[in-house]
Amino acid sequence: MFEMEFFRPLSTGFLSLASDRLIDYLHQTENGLPVTTLLPPEGLRRAYTEGGIPLGLEDDQNAEAPEKLLEAMRLTLQYSTCTSHPLFFNQLYGGPEPAGIAGEWLTVVANTNCHTFEVAPVFTLVETEVLAKLARVIGGPYSDAHDGLFVPGGSIANIYGMHLARNRADPEVKRRGAVGGPHLVAFTSEQAHYSYLKAVALTGLGSDNLIGVACDDSGAMCPAALQEAIMAVKGEGKTPFFVGATAGTTVTGAFDPLEPLAEVCREHGLWLHVDAAWGGAALLSRKLRHHMAGCEQADSLCWNPHKLLGMPLQCSVFLTRHAAILKQTNASGAAYLFQPDKLNAEYDLGDKTIQCGRRPDAFKLWLAWKAYGDAGLERWVDRSAELAEAFARKIEGSKGAFQLVMQEAPFNVCFWWVPPQLRPFRPDQASAADKALLSKVAPAIKEAMQHKGDAMIGFQPLRDAPNFFRIVFAGAKLLKDCCLDDLLHQMDDYGQHLFPAQCNLDAGEI
Amino acid sequence: MFEMEFFRPLSTGFLSLASDRLIDYLHQTENGLPVTTLLPPEGLRRAYTEGGIPLGLEDDQNAEAPEKLLEAMRLTLQYSTCTSHPLFFNQLYGGPEPAGIAGEWLTVVANTNCHTFEVAPVFTLVETEVLAKLARVIGGPYSDAHDGLFVPGGSIANIYGMHLARNRADPEVKRRGAVGGPHLVAFTSEQAHYSYLKAVALTGLGSDNLIGVACDDSGAMCPAALQEAIMAVKGEGKTPFFVGATAGTTVTGAFDPLEPLAEVCREHGLWLHVDAAWGGAALLSRKLRHHMAGCEQADSLCWNPHKLLGMPLQCSVFLTRHAAILKQTNASGAAYLFQPDKLNAEYDLGDKTIQCGRRPDAFKLWLAWKAYGDAGLERWVDRSAELAEAFARKIEGSKGAFQLVMQEAPFNVCFWWVPPQLRPFRPDQASAADKALLSKVAPAIKEAMQHKGDAMIGFQPLRDAPNFFRIVFAGAKLLKDCCLDDLLHQMDDYGQHLFPAQCNLDAGEI
Repeated sequence: MFEMEFFRPLSTGFLSLASDRLIDYLHQTENGLPVTTLLPPEGLRRAYTEGGIPLGLEDDQNAEAPEKLLEAMRLTLQYSTCTSHPLFFNQLYGGPEPAGIAGEWLTVVANTNCHTFEVAPVFTLVETEVLAKLARVIGGPYSDAHDGLFVPGGSIANIYGMHLARNRADPEVKRRGAVGGPHLVAFTSEQAHYSYLKAVALTGLGSDNLIGVACDDSGAMCPAALQEAIMAVKGEGKTPFFVGATAGTTVTGAFDPLEPLAEVCREHGLWLHVDAAWGGAALLSRKLRHHMAGCEQADSLCWNPHKLLGMPLQCSVFLTRHAAILKQTNASGAAYLFQPDKLNAEYDLGDKTIQCGRRPDAFKLWLAWKAYGDAGLERWVDRSAELAEAFARKIEGSKGAFQLVMQEAPFNVCFWWVPPQLRPFRPDQASAADKALLSKVAPAIKEAMQHKGDAMIGFQPLRDAPNFFRIVFAGAKLLKDCCLDDLLHQMDDYGQHLFPAQCNLDAGEI
Repeated sequence: MFEMEFFRPLSTGFLSLASDRLIDYLHQTENGLPVTTLLPPEGLRRAYTEGGIPLGLEDDQNAEAPEKLLEAMRLTLQYSTCTSHPLFFNQLYGGPEPAGIAGEWLTVVANTNCHTFEVAPVFTLVETEVLAKLARVIGGPYSDAHDGLFVPGGSIANIYGMHLARNRADPEVKRRGAVGGPHLVAFTSEQAHYSYLKAVALTGLGSDNLIGVACDDSGAMCPAALQEAIMAVKGEGKTPFFVGATAGTTVTGAFDPLEPLAEVCREHGLWLHVDAAWGGAALLSRKLRHHMAGCEQADSLCWNPHKLLGMPLQCSVFLTRHAAILKQTNASGAAYLFQPDKLNAEYDLGDKTIQCGRRPDAFKLWLAWKAYGDAGLERWVDRSAELAEAFARKIEGSKGAFQLVMQEAPFNVCFWWVPPQLRPFRPDQASAADKALLSKVAPAIKEAMQHKGDAMIGFQPLRDAPNFFRIVFAGAKLLKDCCLDDLLHQMDDYGQHLFPAQCNLDAGEI
């Protein structure tokens, strides 16, 4: 009477069909699928309805046949943005890598949590091993002692950094709470990721107590400005406790100068956390790791192998050189889960986290690391920087049609397509009208490329610079030299068409 | 010169091989794989070394051949705890469901984030649709207005509830921080999940300001005790702001009485959050949803379809009936990501979260809901309760060998195997020595079952009750009636062998 067949309209045979189609899709991404099939929400809804499996869940939803589910999967792949497309440059992540996919698919099937050794013996050891390897890659004090976790994204990792720092600065906070404690103040650069802002909101520190420190022209935090900001806060009788540095800023890709920042932090007894979500990959390259110099002096750092290294989302590492502090800060000792009288309880990782269940995100990176080896990963990282460099040289060789916003960083190139009448564009001398015109260019070209489905590149304004494109070479996408030339030709064509030489602001409003 | 073939030691052909093996593994889980192959860490390391692919990442790690990677995958499945095994009852999750697996595998291949519509058009709409369906299932004010997110686990969802509640109680906290603000106090039951403790640590509220409210014998929070606790806190001049209720406690499966709790919260203007991570599934059953009565009056709630409903980890919903508050609390308006001048920007979900990247966890649930329909999911949930009921009756029919710790909850059965000389076991009359003996029984029987690999059931102590087993019927595992009889026979055999009638405390120390 307890047969559960009833509950399983789908067998594992369905999984065979589904996985075949997923693998076919990955093949196609290398052979001319559009990067996006641009439909507004109502168009998407129509496509699913016409496919016989509406997007909505009805009030009395029927069970659909397996063929309908396969059709839904097909439609979902067709209308999802194709991050594996060679010309998807819109985000700091890209095509997922096959070993990473296989590793992730395995964790889905194994379906367990890295909270206790007894339900995740292999994943627990794999996580420990990957963290140990990364600690050795960082070197310095991390080779002697470290602790860490794979966490759900870089923002959460930055929250961990701030959370641990507060607990070191105010050991009573875990029990007493912030009310009645010291008035703590955190520092980060003006160009740091917005997750620091989320972190001060969530932890109850407050955005008034997050000081944005000035950056140089490249977008890197100025140590002298940090020193000044700390002195000013001390002068107000408040307690500086945390500096959130960035190694590879989101937009310009700048690396904060970690050695001088670490020196300032040591002088004032502040916790230095490095958000290396994007730039941490430089550690794997002998040519590029100088950008991370000083990171071994940081109290904690994060790195997202799901960004440059093409691990399927999510794959985020948090590491600290303070071996006991994760447990001190987060342990709650839940009796139902971390029973000391069960086997191998001393290997349980779960009491160190802010979560309970936690995915075994280390496994895919472990498998990929075994697939590539140190040399393969190094080559990958170097390649990303070489592509950025080559792309920047193409921009410089474009006779003014394209223009670098600033000198390129190792992994980021920021550039404009400049309408003919604004060439060469000089931000410091440009009129408001010129800036208003230029600010319309990137959205318009991007939209045209999205409609055509041939490429996606992100744009954004920054300080006084009107909207500009940012290109990065993330993920495991196939990419040929001619692709980049073709891309620039296309963008130039769109630019010329949308912003002809005589266009004015009105004409730019398309 | 930009060919990227070099970077891909693995082709999608590898994925075909890998997925075939994963599907084979799922087949085997239904046909006699051990639930666990118990090896200590050093034994696991030896197994991988003997398999030619050591667990460690070397200082100069070589690239391994694809066959080695497949061998690593095989070993990982072999030595991972098999949560799909019919007799894996160790956690509130179990075997993953095929539609859920297919949906999750697709999201791995699509590899994108639910932060902006432009990179996740389908996933954004799917998330919106699933949340809307759930809001209608909850009913009441949720039918009119709601907002929500899929988040990385129930603990994070509980953190969201507390975070939003604080921002409602103290709208200045986002800017000013907690220092200088009201002295806020939260309430939850003594038997609530430990994530509430993590939440007060992370948000800076402090464990002193989390009051554990007394429960009745079933483990449900007493509204009168809550009322008293609130009055006491007010008497101290502090500000109660949040009640964290539980629908389906982790150990006993108790449902807090939500209607009277909601009334107390209304009276005092407190935010009521319901942690329905486990018990929320009752909403899908006409027979069982009365356990959730009053949940529609909650300000927020969470539910984990990766628990009872067998979605692959992670699949956690956070919902609130306050449509604007997620954005008010979490928005940072990052210019580089949420550009208002890109297409369809108004559909972006990302600014509402504490993350930046966020996995499209709604998709697998959407696909499974289409596969099962409302009726199929209802049958699943009912079945889980029927199995619990049937199991409890078997315990009662065991002539004293097994004994219920308390009356069973809809989805949880807590029980002892009682050594002959302690039968019937009466906790209130038992000596310390008797309790000490009984506390050794569950760990010993569990260990024996782990060594043999035939079943895994969790145990824990609670209040005065010595270690007892908790069984739950989670996930999409195949399960036959005879399995449960066999299980009880096995446990009884182990018990009789390990704790013969004449055993005393010393003999029990195995």
